[in-house]
Amino acid sequence: MTRRLVVIGGDAGGMTAAARARRRVPDPSDLEIVAFERTEFTSYSACGIPYFVGDLVHDVDDLVARSPQEHRQRGLDVRTRHEVVAIHLDARSVRVRDLGRGDERDEPFDDLVIATGASPRRPPIDGIDAAGIYGVQTLADGVTVRRAVDDARPEHAVVVGGGYVGLELAEALHRRGLRVSLVEMGAHPMPTLDEDIGALVADALRALGIDVYLNEAAERFEADADGHVRSVVTASRSLPADLVVLGLGVKPNVALAEAAGIPLGETGAIVTDERMSTPVPGVWAAGDCVESRHRVSGGPVNVALGTHANKQGRVVGTNVTGGTAVFPGVIGTAVSKVCEYEVARTGLTEREAAAAGFDFVAATIESTTRAGYYPGAAPIKVKVVAERASGRMLGAQIVGREGAAKRIDAAAVAIWNEMPVAEVASLDLSYAPPFSPVWDPVLVAARKVADLCE
Amino acid sequence: MTRRLVVIGGDAGGMTAAARARRRVPDPSDLEIVAFERTEFTSYSACGIPYFVGDLVHDVDDLVARSPQEHRQRGLDVRTRHEVVAIHLDARSVRVRDLGRGDERDEPFDDLVIATGASPRRPPIDGIDAAGIYGVQTLADGVTVRRAVDDARPEHAVVVGGGYVGLELAEALHRRGLRVSLVEMGAHPMPTLDEDIGALVADALRALGIDVYLNEAAERFEADADGHVRSVVTASRSLPADLVVLGLGVKPNVALAEAAGIPLGETGAIVTDERMSTPVPGVWAAGDCVESRHRVSGGPVNVALGTHANKQGRVVGTNVTGGTAVFPGVIGTAVSKVCEYEVARTGLTEREAAAAGFDFVAATIESTTRAGYYPGAAPIKVKVVAERASGRMLGAQIVGREGAAKRIDAAAVAIWNEMPVAEVASLDLSYAPPFSPVWDPVLVAARKVADLCE
Repeated sequence: MTRRLVVIGGDAGGMTAAARARRRVPDPSDLEIVAFERTEFTSYSACGIPYFVGDLVHDVDDLVARSPQEHRQRGLDVRTRHEVVAIHLDARSVRVRDLGRGDERDEPFDDLVIATGASPRRPPIDGIDAAGIYGVQTLADGVTVRRAVDDARPEHAVVVGGGYVGLELAEALHRRGLRVSLVEMGAHPMPTLDEDIGALVADALRALGIDVYLNEAAERFEADADGHVRSVVTASRSLPADLVVLGLGVKPNVALAEAAGIPLGETGAIVTDERMSTPVPGVWAAGDCVESRHRVSGGPVNVALGTHANKQGRVVGTNVTGGTAVFPGVIGTAVSKVCEYEVARTGLTEREAAAAGFDFVAATIESTTRAGYYPGAAPIKVKVVAERASGRMLGAQIVGREGAAKRIDAAAVAIWNEMPVAEVASLDLSYAPPFSPVWDPVLVAARKVADLCE
Repeated sequence: MTRRLVVIGGDAGGMTAAARARRRVPDPSDLEIVAFERTEFTSYSACGIPYFVGDLVHDVDDLVARSPQEHRQRGLDVRTRHEVVAIHLDARSVRVRDLGRGDERDEPFDDLVIATGASPRRPPIDGIDAAGIYGVQTLADGVTVRRAVDDARPEHAVVVGGGYVGLELAEALHRRGLRVSLVEMGAHPMPTLDEDIGALVADALRALGIDVYLNEAAERFEADADGHVRSVVTASRSLPADLVVLGLGVKPNVALAEAAGIPLGETGAIVTDERMSTPVPGVWAAGDCVESRHRVSGGPVNVALGTHANKQGRVVGTNVTGGTAVFPGVIGTAVSKVCEYEVARTGLTEREAAAAGFDFVAATIESTTRAGYYPGAAPIKVKVVAERASGRMLGAQIVGREGAAKRIDAAAVAIWNEMPVAEVASLDLSYAPPFSPVWDPVLVAARKVADLCE
């Protein structure tokens, strides 16, 4: 008898699950796989949107790893412009609206994958529904913003919120010739970094010519008679704005799951076990809509990042076809390019370590990306956080120029393995003058923190 | 009573030990520290020599991290142009020749650090003592070769042996306008890599315009009437040569230790424990002259690399002053830039895994250094070797362009922690389009090998 797997959401989490399941069960008469996606795009790189807006990537199709047609050629029944509007667990079916025709029908499933993603936060600020104010999460959002830049030729842009996506879009819009302001309610951009590292990012943005307003929140958006945004008002100023991008983070899309009675966790995202199974048998979840376990803090987190979505989707695709795979959790690794700076983090920041109840020490060192005498040696700062008594490495942050950020991976693997910083300082990392000083900066930082632990 | 620490050898291992000891015991009336160095240089980057020969680094002083004068200002009695010619363990003294004045005298020690380094291998090939044939290990060697290029304006260079230093010097000489040939007796350059990876390196050298002759050994060097080398003769050809560089690896300088009865290991290098103590109380060793434990094979290895010398020297400096530090061994991590390629390795190659008795599997994947759509995305190949039954990651090799090689560090930390490849494939490594595809190439390779283990 043919089993039927239904996937809600056609991006990384959902389609990776579908593709993996098909690879393990090639015959559609054994397993029918149907995926519903409300936009026209599947399997795209949301992380690439800022580079499309900034015209570093010219064609939106370049961001699409696999189109609906390509999925269909691989035996997946992908239905774009179809929105799932309800999950009926008792009936083992979903209610689907065909956005083109406008009608709805029920689609049965044996197994269900919820991969509904996340949406940009839109707090109830006065005027936030004016035209020209964009959250950017789906590729369709990206196309909309790019079109607004290409067609309307806006002069002034304001980015509200200095997270990764906000900063990347600020730089993209600056690149397109707009006068860009960034409004961040915290003391520094990139609130997921500690303040000393974040301050360097603010400097880099200003050096590029972006106006940065810290400790200021958008209190009101003013629109013209046509309802199009014209300014962003804070407690201190009014900033002209032809285009506003919201960079206030995202929230998981859980309305469907919640309405169906599928449990949510304390982060507000869908709860799964390590196999990415929800507590409801046969119902799986993957991607930006799920809660993950943070391996260092031990607590739940909701991290919207394509690399997790892909890994989780693969785990679902294996398990839903009778295999055994686990998603072992996250440690909060992230990287971004901001102007000429590369910024990266993994594990816990000082603030996060404190919140998780650790007694910790931290140190920051300055070094260079290559041997000091080698052409192109660039400054790099590495910060390491460790548990005071045990020396266990808890977190690392890096800011620097070309060649700096990917070093965070060595720190990430060390943290993943709960290594003490004294041992990290002894690691056999690669050394040659074009790549590193004789003591790799990550080792130097670990050693400095180890001295504080002793 | 003043103790006296004598250091033999003024480069990384010895001077790091001396500096660390001085830092922990600042008062010379508590601890006198005397270092003997036969050349005029201290604390230099031997790894930087090819870039000095190639004129990427213009001033030899740029390769000197700390000059004798700077060491003296920090309370170290550094005597350059002084060669230790004998160690008298019973008398607790060393016999030292002043190379300037030509006289010798005995210098007492309480503790002794042997950091005599390594020398280029000079096999007994007919004619190898002709003028113009250089091994390059000390900074003085580097100055000699550079002067030969600057002054004699040689036209043809032959590099004999395709190890890291040989390749880096081949590229340096090519950069200086010489017509360069490489003669390698193995099937590919970089014998420390597996053949499939090494073959790519040969391609890169040829693309640059270097003539590469594989499976050929130098059988004879021919000199002119003045005794200066004029050609390198192999079984197949005679290559014109105004300058020859030997890239046949190095051997540890152990004559002093051996004559004194200090035990050597099976690699021919000096044996120490984890504290870098030889079996003779109060006699320590560090750097290119010592044997290290390979944490994956479990066997002894002699690896001449500045990063190990620095770490070992620091361990000695701590222990010799009453502290406790260990050097936990190596895993064979190395990286090099060859033309436009970056080449890196860690752990065991297939050949080394076989020699160590592992039943292993291996796989190689191709990916890109950045998201495929992001400008500057460059090809990268990653090979991973794992133990078949356990899945334990044993080794990794990377070849690629800008941004490829430093990824070896994530693999190195995984191997250090004896992670199974299936777990490596789940690691939370950093992802953003300017830095990586959504699946980091190291993860993809680990996953491919994990599938072979299952």
